[in-house]
Amino acid sequence: MSLLTVGSVAFDAIETPFGKTDKIIGGAATYITLAASFYNSDQKIVAVVGEDFPQDMLDTLKSRGVDLEGLQIKQGEKSFFWSGRYHNDMNSRDTLVTELNVLEYFDPIIPESYQDTEYLMLGNLSPQVQRTVIERLHKRPKLVAMDTMNFWMDIAMDELKKTISMVDVLIINDEEARQLSGEYSLVRASQMIRNLGPKYLIIKKGEHGALLFHGNSVFSAPALPLEEVFDPTGAGDTFAGGFMGYLASTEDISFDSMKRAIIHGSALASFCVEKFGTEQLTAVDRGDLEKRIGEFISLTDFNMEHVIS
Amino acid sequence: MSLLTVGSVAFDAIETPFGKTDKIIGGAATYITLAASFYNSDQKIVAVVGEDFPQDMLDTLKSRGVDLEGLQIKQGEKSFFWSGRYHNDMNSRDTLVTELNVLEYFDPIIPESYQDTEYLMLGNLSPQVQRTVIERLHKRPKLVAMDTMNFWMDIAMDELKKTISMVDVLIINDEEARQLSGEYSLVRASQMIRNLGPKYLIIKKGEHGALLFHGNSVFSAPALPLEEVFDPTGAGDTFAGGFMGYLASTEDISFDSMKRAIIHGSALASFCVEKFGTEQLTAVDRGDLEKRIGEFISLTDFNMEHVIS
Repeated sequence: MSLLTVGSVAFDAIETPFGKTDKIIGGAATYITLAASFYNSDQKIVAVVGEDFPQDMLDTLKSRGVDLEGLQIKQGEKSFFWSGRYHNDMNSRDTLVTELNVLEYFDPIIPESYQDTEYLMLGNLSPQVQRTVIERLHKRPKLVAMDTMNFWMDIAMDELKKTISMVDVLIINDEEARQLSGEYSLVRASQMIRNLGPKYLIIKKGEHGALLFHGNSVFSAPALPLEEVFDPTGAGDTFAGGFMGYLASTEDISFDSMKRAIIHGSALASFCVEKFGTEQLTAVDRGDLEKRIGEFISLTDFNMEHVIS
Repeated sequence: MSLLTVGSVAFDAIETPFGKTDKIIGGAATYITLAASFYNSDQKIVAVVGEDFPQDMLDTLKSRGVDLEGLQIKQGEKSFFWSGRYHNDMNSRDTLVTELNVLEYFDPIIPESYQDTEYLMLGNLSPQVQRTVIERLHKRPKLVAMDTMNFWMDIAMDELKKTISMVDVLIINDEEARQLSGEYSLVRASQMIRNLGPKYLIIKKGEHGALLFHGNSVFSAPALPLEEVFDPTGAGDTFAGGFMGYLASTEDISFDSMKRAIIHGSALASFCVEKFGTEQLTAVDRGDLEKRIGEFISLTDFNMEHVIS
C-alpha cells in the first residue's frame, strides 16, 4: 500500500572518531524512503531541495519506486545543510552548522495523486509543517507515524504537542521521551506521552535497542551488537523507514506486526551505521537483509519450554 | 547439583532518590544464595561475618537450603559494611563508607564436605581470595563463574587477570567490560576479555538488559521495563545467583541453557530492585517468578514466520 514520507532531503557533513566527510547526501526523508524501498514499491515523498541537489540521488530514489511528484526543486536556492560531530561514545553529538536554506519557508504541497495515501510517515520537521500535511490530506491515512527531536521541544512545545495529538505512532529516542514527559522512567514517560494522543509509542535507545508501548503491552527489541558504529547519522530515520515500509507492505498494523516491523527497522538501521551516510543502505540487498533478520532471531531467541518445572 | 557461593555477607546503608535505609542486610553472597534458592536446595557458602550479624538472616538462608558450615562467625569483630548513595539516574552511585572489618583478613576456608561442589560462584571479592578458593578445591568444579568490579581493576589488575584466566564465566557490567578491555565497543571488549580465559562472558547493562558472548554467538536479554527502580543494590548479585542456581539445578551448561538462565537471573533481578535490599527477594515466591518469566517471554517474542516473502 502506498506510503507517503514527508521530511528533509538534504546535505550533511559528518565527523566521527573514525573520520569525516565532505558534504554528502542525507536528510530524514532520504533515509526513510531508502529503507522503506526494501519493502514497498509504492512510495511518495513530499520534500524540498535546492538546485544544488544531485540528480543521481533523485534517480536512485526513482529507481527504488519513489514517486517524486511531491519533491519541490527550488531554482536559485540551496538545499538544507547540517553538519555535526559525534563524541567518542557515538551517543551524543554537537551540531556544528545548520543552514535551513529551502526548509525555511517549506510549504508541503500535496499533489492530488497523493490523496489516496494509506500510510503517512512524518520525518523530523517543524511540527507546524507536519500538522499541515495531516490537515491537507482529505482522508485520514490508516496509520500516521511521526518522528521529532529535542530542538522542537525546546522552542515549540505547544505546537509539538498539538501535532503529536494527531498521530497514531510517535517514534522518538529515550532522551527525547524523558524531555517530552518530564519523567525519567521510560514506563512512566510512555504513559504520559500516550496520554497526549498516540496509541503507540516507540522509544529508540541506540545501541540498546528499542521499546514499543501500546495499551498494557511492551515489546523490547535488541540492537545488534556491532564491532563498530561508524556513523550513527540517519539510523533513526532508517529505523522508521523500515518500520513503516514493512507495515505498509504487509497491510497489517496489529501489535504483532509492529513487533516484526521494529525488528526489520532495527536490522536496516544496523546496516546504516556501518558506513558514512547512505552508503551501506544503498549497497545491501534483500538477501543481506534476510540474513541480518536471522541474526536478530538468534540474538533474542530463548526456548523457555520445559523450563518451569 | 551443589552450588558453592563465595562472597560477602554484610550490612549496607543505602540512599536513593526514593529514600534511605539504616543498616540493612546485604552482601554479594546473601543476594546470590537467596536468588539461587529459587532453584537449588543444595547450596553451600564460604563467607565471614562478625558477631553483630543477625541470626534471623542466617536462619532464613538455612531454611532456604543453604548449608552454613563454611560461614565463619568472628567473635569480637564486626561484619563488612558498605554505604552508598545512588544518583537520580540510578545507574551511578557514590560510595560513602566502606568498612572492611572481618573481610580485611578473610581466609576462605573450605570445609571438607564442600569438596564435591560442582558449581562455583565467586561473588565480588579480592581476586586473591577468589583464586584461593579455586586452588583449595581438590577437583575443579564443572562450572566456575565470577563477578568482580572496577575497584579491583584500579588497584590489582594483574591479580585480577590471573583469577579471570581460571574461570569459565565472567559476569561484569558494561562499564567494567570497557575498563577491563580498554575497548568502547562491547563486541570488541568481549573478544579481548575472552582472550584472557573465560569461554563465556556476560555483560550486564542495567535497565538495558544483558549480553552473553560465547564463540561467535551472542544472546541479548532485555531488562523488564519498570515504572520505578527503587534500589539497584544487589541486582547484579541476584542476577548471578539466578543464573548459577538455574544452571546448577538443570545440570545443563549448554549455551541454550545459559540463555534461559540469563532470563531467570533477569527476572529475579527485576524483583530485587522493586524494594530496598533483600526485602522483595524474600517476599516473592516461585509462582511470582513464573509469572514474571512469562512477562519476559511476551516482552521479547516476535514471530518472524511468514515474514520474509
